[in-house]
Amino acid sequence: MAVQLSKKEKYKSSILAFLLGLLAGCAHQPGVMEGPLTIAKQGSFFVGGRSVQSEALSTLPAYAPSGTIAVEQMYVHYQLPVVPVGPAITLIHGCCLTGKTWETTPDGRMGWDEYFLRRGRGVYVIDQVARGRSAANPSAINSVKMGKTAADTLPPVFSAAQEAAWAIFRFGPEYPKVFPGMQFPLEAMPEFWKQMVLDWNATMPTPNPTVPALSELAVKLDGTILMSHSQSGIYPFQVAALNTRGISAIVSIEPGACPAATEDLKPYLKMPILVLWGDYVDLAPRWSPRLKMCRAFVEAVNKAGGRAENVVMPEIGMKGGSHMLMQDRNSHEVADWLLAWIDRNVPR
Amino acid sequence: MAVQLSKKEKYKSSILAFLLGLLAGCAHQPGVMEGPLTIAKQGSFFVGGRSVQSEALSTLPAYAPSGTIAVEQMYVHYQLPVVPVGPAITLIHGCCLTGKTWETTPDGRMGWDEYFLRRGRGVYVIDQVARGRSAANPSAINSVKMGKTAADTLPPVFSAAQEAAWAIFRFGPEYPKVFPGMQFPLEAMPEFWKQMVLDWNATMPTPNPTVPALSELAVKLDGTILMSHSQSGIYPFQVAALNTRGISAIVSIEPGACPAATEDLKPYLKMPILVLWGDYVDLAPRWSPRLKMCRAFVEAVNKAGGRAENVVMPEIGMKGGSHMLMQDRNSHEVADWLLAWIDRNVPR
Repeated sequence: MAVQLSKKEKYKSSILAFLLGLLAGCAHQPGVMEGPLTIAKQGSFFVGGRSVQSEALSTLPAYAPSGTIAVEQMYVHYQLPVVPVGPAITLIHGCCLTGKTWETTPDGRMGWDEYFLRRGRGVYVIDQVARGRSAANPSAINSVKMGKTAADTLPPVFSAAQEAAWAIFRFGPEYPKVFPGMQFPLEAMPEFWKQMVLDWNATMPTPNPTVPALSELAVKLDGTILMSHSQSGIYPFQVAALNTRGISAIVSIEPGACPAATEDLKPYLKMPILVLWGDYVDLAPRWSPRLKMCRAFVEAVNKAGGRAENVVMPEIGMKGGSHMLMQDRNSHEVADWLLAWIDRNVPR
Repeated sequence: MAVQLSKKEKYKSSILAFLLGLLAGCAHQPGVMEGPLTIAKQGSFFVGGRSVQSEALSTLPAYAPSGTIAVEQMYVHYQLPVVPVGPAITLIHGCCLTGKTWETTPDGRMGWDEYFLRRGRGVYVIDQVARGRSAANPSAINSVKMGKTAADTLPPVFSAAQEAAWAIFRFGPEYPKVFPGMQFPLEAMPEFWKQMVLDWNATMPTPNPTVPALSELAVKLDGTILMSHSQSGIYPFQVAALNTRGISAIVSIEPGACPAATEDLKPYLKMPILVLWGDYVDLAPRWSPRLKMCRAFVEAVNKAGGRAENVVMPEIGMKGGSHMLMQDRNSHEVADWLLAWIDRNVPR
């Protein structure tokens, strides 16, 4: 039943492919940032996960209340370049968001997923455990609905209100004020708000099961740059504390926390580390203590013989960065700076 | 700060791209189903969605309970071929699943998303409203947790138990029995179970907000084949009832329902329609009445002057199909058959 091409058709097809190759300049090379894109391979899979039994999977007659489901698996989507220039980059989104963070920006420009790929990096985009395409467990909700447990046992799931998120994402000091020189494409704000999803993070143990799943992925890839953001900012460090194997570098973008300078720093001496910040951090009471914490951590790592950097973008000439640097108007410029940092610090 | 290539570098780069094109045979042509893949463009965006105010977004001190969130938007990921051969295909997953349905199969083979793309079709993969990367609303849960509303107002969210899902997906008559000749890759079952997510479908109005979002997408694309599965099987018909514009064809795979033969059939006379079934349907009490309903619908559409087909795969020589035909071992053969049906019925 499968479509079979005759030898002649195959020959014609390969000639056509050759000619199209000429026309489209299709083969991906680092530096070819527009037009058709050639990828060696793409796909998706899950890492981690475990089976749990539940008596509260459903309150609907059509679906059984009792049985087994898989939870704590992490969805991973990947694309690989034809000519890789070094370790792949694993992109780990932050609070209330999914892997969509790294795809097409709200104003319709190329996301870092494709940008890094076109620069010769394999790219792995994950959805954190219990978020997006990684399953959450409804049992605690249905158990209350069934009258088996009390309302206060309901999981503390939440969505970030846009008005409050405004200051957290540092679009301005408070909703709807805007910091002067803001790089975030504010005209595309409705598209950004649509990226936000219900967040189960507060129902998870510490470290979040995303952390061992990331470790499993890093080991499987035998080398990857863990690039985290915001709420997941601490994850690559927690992965390193579990197992440093497979971590080529840590790039933590606007982390919610860095490890304490006083803790065991040994795991963090084994790979280059970058902590990167946008603009206006000192104007944000939520963020300035975090920057301070990360500065202390980076200093302690370097004192102990490690290679860590804490970079605040306006201090190196890139102004106006929001918390969502990967979606700011200058996101490709930031991406190029990051790739140059990676080139300087991670052996190809 | 952006990496700038000199003219000489650009020239060298384009020569290299040319040579790589030769080496990789990279330009995508329908029929080139292995090796590097060249795409014209890819990305993601949302369709639909509305703003809602809530006083119950969060019970956590770090996130405000009150404010605005976006709900009912539909996540769409797309990839476009360099040489399209006809209208794009929009892939609409079923119950308890996400767009992952159409990606890499549980046993690691190419999903229909890439398979159709390599055959020259643009592919749009959606996550249904309130599923996967399309946000759900936590307000009804938090309202109960806050003591404002009663436990019986909790949303009827559910996850499908693996034991019960076994028969629904027709892997066998009951868990863990297997139908003889089963095409589903049972050895990869754990990976399949990880695809299943918490489902908010029962909290949604009829038609599901995914339906107007699909209509908006179809109009935007100015022609697409709506390919649905299982719980979403009815959606393309509901889209047609809203507005037939932009619907090049309907392919409903193992639908949970077809429109009743007695309803106004006019919208369904305007496009070719295929309803496709796997094997063992008559052995499944959940599915045999649905097949009967769809047969009656197809017959009524044809009597009224439409072009509809109801195809049961074993009757045309493809045996052993489960409910997840896009993941069965013969999924590429099924895809080729589908593309041939599309070629016969949809003008290029």
